[in-house]
Amino acid sequence: MIHVVKATGETEVFSADKLQRSIHRAGVPDSLQNQLLIHIQKRLYDNITTSEIYRHITEFLETSHPFAKSKYNLKQAIMALGPSGYAFEDFVSEILRTQEYQTVVRATLNGNCIAHEIDVVAEKDNKRIMIEAKFHNLSGTKTKIHVILYTKARFDDVKQKNNIHEAWLVTNTKTTTDVIDYALCMNLKVISWSYPEGGSLRDLVEKSGLTPITSSTVLSLNQKQTLLENHIVLCRDISNNPSILDLVVLDEEKRKEVLSEIQFICTKT
Amino acid sequence: MIHVVKATGETEVFSADKLQRSIHRAGVPDSLQNQLLIHIQKRLYDNITTSEIYRHITEFLETSHPFAKSKYNLKQAIMALGPSGYAFEDFVSEILRTQEYQTVVRATLNGNCIAHEIDVVAEKDNKRIMIEAKFHNLSGTKTKIHVILYTKARFDDVKQKNNIHEAWLVTNTKTTTDVIDYALCMNLKVISWSYPEGGSLRDLVEKSGLTPITSSTVLSLNQKQTLLENHIVLCRDISNNPSILDLVVLDEEKRKEVLSEIQFICTKT
Repeated sequence: MIHVVKATGETEVFSADKLQRSIHRAGVPDSLQNQLLIHIQKRLYDNITTSEIYRHITEFLETSHPFAKSKYNLKQAIMALGPSGYAFEDFVSEILRTQEYQTVVRATLNGNCIAHEIDVVAEKDNKRIMIEAKFHNLSGTKTKIHVILYTKARFDDVKQKNNIHEAWLVTNTKTTTDVIDYALCMNLKVISWSYPEGGSLRDLVEKSGLTPITSSTVLSLNQKQTLLENHIVLCRDISNNPSILDLVVLDEEKRKEVLSEIQFICTKT
Repeated sequence: MIHVVKATGETEVFSADKLQRSIHRAGVPDSLQNQLLIHIQKRLYDNITTSEIYRHITEFLETSHPFAKSKYNLKQAIMALGPSGYAFEDFVSEILRTQEYQTVVRATLNGNCIAHEIDVVAEKDNKRIMIEAKFHNLSGTKTKIHVILYTKARFDDVKQKNNIHEAWLVTNTKTTTDVIDYALCMNLKVISWSYPEGGSLRDLVEKSGLTPITSSTVLSLNQKQTLLENHIVLCRDISNNPSILDLVVLDEEKRKEVLSEIQFICTKT
């Protein structure tokens, strides 16, 4: 039996189903999916790391279907929204807007004791929600109990004065099980990379089609950073308004390549 | 007017009084105090950093009174209790024991929602206190609002089932003003490096005479780390039981030197 070592250090039994789902989700054309599956299975050995499997996938896609690679690496792309947490707050806010929430990022609310900066305040149907957007840029990190605890204490301090009905924690990593247990017990909502089933951050990003610009493999790291600093977080923004690319230096050919890639990775599968 | 730039980046007007208090506190013999004050004042210029002043003091003490140097660098010695926070938890526990508290470090308590590891549980006169011991090993860091918020949420979760009456935050750095405001509002106790006046961590360490072994200038970094890993945190432990030094390799002469230094730095001023 072949085991896979995850970024957290945990081990699980290799599942061809899981790999297939992940390949499908990445928008790899049907014609290539089987070929890719065979490519990976040939390279498996016991205790292979997820990052090695990931490398084999991207190697395969690089030669056979370059743009699918940018779509596959969604998790890495969200990690690349750092180093600060601002772009992730903007990103969470945009996801909620696709669900018809009105949002404000980094609002200062007075609590009973002190003033708090709330990462995202979201409102829909007269219900107001405060959201703690917790960003980590290290793969394998888990969001720990402290974060949901301080979210609760902050919620307790602001809810009355600001008519806040719910508190959510949204994070781009997994969480420890304590975090989920405490949240369920205290009636707080947690959206992590893989939780809850069907409503996880990955699910929400995929449903909304809001791929971050950091998914691009054509733009350089510096160019992405420049765009993020100008609050350009979504490839949709570039797709809707290509003149945004004037913010970075690109020759005519590279610019076409970026736009063509962006066009592909913004399309829902 | 001469300004001093602190480790936090904040600036304040130089105060000869403050310098004198700090020299006195370090246990520098009276005969040397004036000489040292003059030594420093000659070297002042506008926007000098506290770390530069500190360097001038240790340079002076190195040549004139070597052992006083180990006593002066209390703040640095506590920072050197890292990199993990365990030694600091042990240290806080020891300080409370000198005040006749019974203490347990790293106890797991069941809360209403989940189990929590509490850094120190202290008990005296039928009053039980949970203590969050927050250690930073970077000078200029301040303990931020999150820490007192999660301390509050943790307290709320454990207090009923465990008959806990108070929650304290003890930290080796300063805190932001928010931390103090929130704590006063929520009836939590904060003991930081310099707060509250007369009962700060610095005051408690000085009153208790519990100098950490990291104050030694004779022991090497590795030797101190070995002792810390064996839960030897206080130079008093070595002074009371010199055979503890068998844990590290020292020739006869060096061993004498360590014991003589430890003898000096364990003596209250």
